[in-house]
Amino acid sequence: MIKIEMNDLDKFFEKGELIPAICYEVNTKTVLMLAYMNKESLKKTLETGYTWFWSRSRQEYWNKGATSGHLQKVVSIYGDCDNDTLLVNVEQTGVACHTGSYSCFFNEIYNTEENE
Amino acid sequence: MIKIEMNDLDKFFEKGELIPAICYEVNTKTVLMLAYMNKESLKKTLETGYTWFWSRSRQEYWNKGATSGHLQKVVSIYGDCDNDTLLVNVEQTGVACHTGSYSCFFNEIYNTEENE
Repeated sequence: MIKIEMNDLDKFFEKGELIPAICYEVNTKTVLMLAYMNKESLKKTLETGYTWFWSRSRQEYWNKGATSGHLQKVVSIYGDCDNDTLLVNVEQTGVACHTGSYSCFFNEIYNTEENE
Repeated sequence: MIKIEMNDLDKFFEKGELIPAICYEVNTKTVLMLAYMNKESLKKTLETGYTWFWSRSRQEYWNKGATSGHLQKVVSIYGDCDNDTLLVNVEQTGVACHTGSYSCFFNEIYNTEENE
Protein backbone atom coordinates (compact mmCIF):
# COMPACT_ATOMS: atom_id res chain seq x y z
CA MET A 1 0.00 0.00 0.00
CA ILE A 2 2.72 2.49 1.02
CA LYS A 3 4.99 2.62 -2.02
CA ILE A 4 7.83 4.66 -0.56
CA GLU A 5 10.32 4.31 2.28
CA MET A 6 9.22 6.45 5.23
CA ASN A 7 12.76 7.88 5.33
CA ASP A 8 12.26 9.06 1.78
CA LEU A 9 9.39 11.42 2.71
CA ASP A 10 11.91 14.15 3.50
CA LYS A 11 12.28 14.94 -0.20
CA PHE A 12 8.79 16.47 -0.20
CA PHE A 13 9.74 19.00 2.46
CA GLU A 14 12.99 20.38 1.09
CA LYS A 15 11.41 23.67 -0.03
CA GLY A 16 9.52 24.16 3.23
CA GLU A 17 7.73 22.44 6.08
CA LEU A 18 4.43 22.40 4.22
CA ILE A 19 3.49 20.90 0.87
CA PRO A 20 0.23 21.66 -0.97
CA ALA A 21 -2.00 18.59 -1.34
CA ILE A 22 -4.67 18.59 -4.03
CA CYS A 23 -7.69 16.44 -3.16
CA TYR A 24 -9.35 14.82 -6.16
CA GLU A 25 -12.47 12.67 -5.98
CA VAL A 26 -11.96 9.52 -8.02
CA ASN A 27 -15.62 8.63 -8.59
CA THR A 28 -16.92 12.07 -9.57
CA LYS A 29 -13.58 13.11 -11.15
CA THR A 30 -13.76 16.44 -9.33
CA VAL A 31 -11.05 18.59 -7.78
CA LEU A 32 -12.41 19.10 -4.25
CA MET A 33 -9.94 21.28 -2.37
CA LEU A 34 -6.34 22.07 -1.63
CA ALA A 35 -4.86 21.88 1.85
CA TYR A 36 -1.36 21.61 3.30
CA MET A 37 0.51 18.69 4.81
CA ASN A 38 3.65 18.66 6.91
CA LYS A 39 5.66 15.47 7.19
CA GLU A 40 3.78 14.30 10.26
CA SER A 41 0.36 14.82 8.65
CA LEU A 42 1.52 12.95 5.54
CA LYS A 43 2.64 10.10 7.81
CA LYS A 44 -0.72 10.10 9.61
CA THR A 45 -2.47 10.00 6.23
CA LEU A 46 -0.36 7.05 5.05
CA GLU A 47 -0.82 5.19 8.33
CA THR A 48 -4.58 5.72 8.68
CA GLY A 49 -5.74 5.81 5.04
CA TYR A 50 -7.70 9.02 5.69
CA THR A 51 -6.55 12.59 5.04
CA TRP A 52 -4.73 14.54 7.73
CA PHE A 53 -3.62 18.11 7.05
CA TRP A 54 -1.83 20.89 8.89
CA SER A 55 -4.17 23.81 9.43
CA ARG A 56 -2.25 27.01 8.84
CA SER A 57 -4.97 29.17 10.41
CA ARG A 58 -5.46 27.03 13.52
CA GLN A 59 -1.84 25.80 13.66
CA GLU A 60 -2.91 22.26 14.42
CA TYR A 61 -3.37 18.85 12.84
CA TRP A 62 -6.65 18.44 11.10
CA ASN A 63 -8.22 15.06 10.37
CA LYS A 64 -10.55 16.11 7.57
CA GLY A 65 -14.15 15.19 8.44
CA ALA A 66 -13.43 14.08 12.02
CA THR A 67 -16.00 16.62 13.28
CA SER A 68 -18.37 16.84 10.29
CA GLY A 69 -18.26 13.19 9.30
CA HIS A 70 -17.13 14.25 5.83
CA LEU A 71 -14.12 11.95 5.78
CA GLN A 72 -11.85 11.42 2.82
CA LYS A 73 -10.76 7.82 2.29
CA VAL A 74 -7.48 7.80 0.44
CA VAL A 75 -7.29 5.73 -2.74
CA SER A 76 -3.83 6.79 -3.86
CA ILE A 77 -1.25 9.53 -3.47
CA TYR A 78 1.23 10.77 -6.06
CA GLY A 79 4.06 13.26 -5.81
CA ASP A 80 4.79 15.50 -8.76
CA CYS A 81 7.87 15.68 -10.95
CA ASP A 82 9.78 18.03 -8.65
CA ASN A 83 8.46 16.76 -5.32
CA ASP A 84 6.74 19.95 -4.25
CA THR A 85 3.04 19.06 -4.65
CA LEU A 86 0.94 16.04 -3.73
CA LEU A 87 -2.11 14.70 -5.52
CA VAL A 88 -4.35 12.86 -3.09
CA ASN A 89 -7.03 10.76 -4.79
CA VAL A 90 -9.90 10.20 -2.38
CA GLU A 91 -13.41 8.92 -1.95
CA GLN A 92 -15.27 11.81 -0.33
CA THR A 93 -18.07 11.17 2.16
CA GLY A 94 -20.62 13.97 1.84
CA VAL A 95 -19.13 17.31 0.82
CA ALA A 96 -15.60 18.64 0.95
CA CYS A 97 -16.22 22.32 1.69
CA HIS A 98 -17.07 23.82 5.08
CA THR A 99 -19.66 26.00 3.27
CA GLY A 100 -21.66 22.88 2.36
CA SER A 101 -20.51 22.97 -1.27
CA TYR A 102 -19.31 19.67 -2.71
CA SER A 103 -16.10 21.27 -3.96
CA CYS A 104 -14.34 24.33 -2.54
CA PHE A 105 -13.94 25.73 -6.07
CA PHE A 106 -17.18 27.57 -6.74
CA ASN A 107 -16.20 31.23 -7.15
CA GLU A 108 -16.29 31.78 -10.90
CA ILE A 109 -13.55 34.04 -12.25
CA TYR A 110 -13.52 33.16 -15.93
CA ASN A 111 -15.58 31.00 -18.23
CA THR A 112 -15.56 30.47 -21.99
CA GLU A 113 -18.68 28.32 -21.87
CA GLU A 114 -21.57 30.51 -22.93
CA ASN A 115 -24.26 28.47 -21.23
CA GLU A 116 -22.71 28.69 -17.79
CA MET B 1 -15.91 35.69 -20.19
CA ILE B 2 -14.15 37.41 -17.28
CA LYS B 3 -16.64 37.07 -14.42
CA ILE B 4 -14.94 39.32 -11.89
CA GLU B 5 -13.94 42.98 -11.65
CA MET B 6 -10.21 43.31 -12.27
CA ASN B 7 -10.02 45.42 -9.09
CA ASP B 8 -11.40 42.45 -7.19
CA LEU B 9 -8.40 40.23 -8.01
CA ASP B 10 -6.58 41.59 -4.96
CA LYS B 11 -8.54 39.29 -2.68
CA PHE B 12 -6.59 36.31 -4.01
CA PHE B 13 -3.28 37.81 -2.92
CA GLU B 14 -4.01 38.80 0.66
CA LYS B 15 -2.03 35.89 2.14
CA GLY B 16 0.93 36.41 -0.18
CA GLU B 17 2.06 37.51 -3.63
CA LEU B 18 1.62 34.01 -5.06
CA ILE B 19 -1.41 31.76 -5.20
CA PRO B 20 -1.28 28.06 -6.11
CA ALA B 21 -3.13 27.27 -9.34
CA ILE B 22 -4.24 23.69 -9.99
CA CYS B 23 -4.44 22.82 -13.69
CA TYR B 24 -7.16 20.31 -14.55
CA GLU B 25 -7.77 18.91 -18.02
CA VAL B 26 -11.47 19.04 -18.79
CA ASN B 27 -11.55 16.39 -21.52
CA THR B 28 -9.45 13.71 -19.82
CA LYS B 29 -10.58 14.76 -16.32
CA THR B 30 -6.98 14.66 -15.12
CA VAL B 31 -5.11 16.84 -12.64
CA LEU B 32 -2.09 17.90 -14.69
CA MET B 33 0.08 20.10 -12.50
CA LEU B 34 0.22 22.85 -9.92
CA ALA B 35 2.01 26.13 -10.52
CA TYR B 36 1.91 29.61 -8.99
CA MET B 37 0.37 32.84 -10.20
CA ASN B 38 0.96 36.36 -9.02
CA LYS B 39 -1.61 39.03 -9.81
CA GLU B 40 0.04 40.00 -13.06
CA SER B 41 0.20 36.40 -14.32
CA LEU B 42 -3.46 35.91 -13.41
CA LYS B 43 -4.26 39.06 -15.41
CA LYS B 44 -2.24 37.80 -18.37
CA THR B 45 -4.10 34.49 -18.18
CA LEU B 46 -7.48 36.23 -18.13
CA GLU B 47 -6.52 38.56 -20.97
CA THR B 48 -4.98 35.95 -23.27
CA GLY B 49 -7.04 32.83 -22.47
CA TYR B 50 -3.84 30.79 -22.03
CA THR B 51 -2.03 30.00 -18.77
CA TRP B 52 0.67 32.32 -17.46
CA PHE B 53 2.48 31.51 -14.23
CA TRP B 54 5.21 32.99 -12.09
CA SER B 55 8.22 30.71 -12.04
CA ARG B 56 9.63 30.65 -8.50
CA SER B 57 12.87 28.98 -9.63
CA ARG B 58 13.53 31.27 -12.58
CA GLN B 59 11.84 34.34 -11.04
CA GLU B 60 10.10 35.22 -14.27
CA TYR B 61 6.77 35.05 -16.03
CA TRP B 62 6.15 31.77 -17.73
CA ASN B 63 3.66 31.33 -20.56
CA LYS B 64 3.15 27.59 -20.26
CA GLY B 65 3.95 25.90 -23.58
CA ALA B 66 5.36 28.99 -25.28
CA THR B 67 8.63 27.12 -25.92
CA SER B 68 7.43 23.50 -26.10
CA GLY B 69 4.15 24.17 -27.89
CA HIS B 70 2.33 22.45 -25.04
CA LEU B 71 -0.08 25.32 -24.47
CA GLN B 72 -3.00 25.26 -22.07
CA LYS B 73 -6.15 26.90 -23.37
CA VAL B 74 -8.22 28.07 -20.44
CA VAL B 75 -11.83 26.90 -20.28
CA SER B 76 -12.70 28.31 -16.86
CA ILE B 77 -11.13 29.47 -13.61
CA TYR B 78 -12.60 29.18 -10.12
CA GLY B 79 -11.37 30.53 -6.80
CA ASP B 80 -11.91 28.45 -3.69
CA CYS B 81 -14.01 29.22 -0.63
CA ASP B 82 -11.31 31.21 1.14
CA ASN B 83 -9.67 32.78 -1.90
CA ASP B 84 -6.27 31.17 -1.51
CA THR B 85 -6.25 28.61 -4.33
CA LEU B 86 -7.25 28.71 -8.00
CA LEU B 87 -8.62 25.87 -10.10
CA VAL B 88 -7.75 26.41 -13.76
CA ASN B 89 -9.68 24.15 -16.11
CA VAL B 90 -7.78 23.80 -19.36
CA GLU B 91 -7.51 22.01 -22.65
CA GLN B 92 -3.94 20.74 -22.77
CA THR B 93 -2.04 20.53 -26.05
CA GLY B 94 0.38 17.60 -25.85
CA VAL B 95 1.69 16.90 -22.37
CA ALA B 96 1.83 19.05 -19.25
CA CYS B 97 5.08 17.85 -17.68
CA HIS B 98 8.59 18.87 -18.71
CA THR B 99 9.58 15.17 -18.32
CA GLY B 100 7.28 14.23 -21.20
CA SER B 101 4.66 12.76 -18.87
CA TYR B 102 1.07 13.79 -19.54
CA SER B 103 0.57 14.76 -15.89
CA CYS B 104 3.23 15.87 -13.42
CA PHE B 105 1.80 13.49 -10.80
CA PHE B 106 3.48 10.16 -11.53
CA ASN B 107 5.54 9.39 -8.41
CA GLU B 108 3.48 6.81 -6.57
CA ILE B 109 3.50 7.17 -2.78
CA TYR B 110 0.44 5.18 -1.77
CA ASN B 111 -2.09 2.99 -3.52
CA THR B 112 -4.94 0.83 -2.28
CA GLU B 113 -5.60 -0.58 -5.73
CA GLU B 114 -3.99 -4.03 -5.82
CA ASN B 115 -3.62 -4.15 -9.59
CA GLU B 116 -1.62 -0.96 -9.87
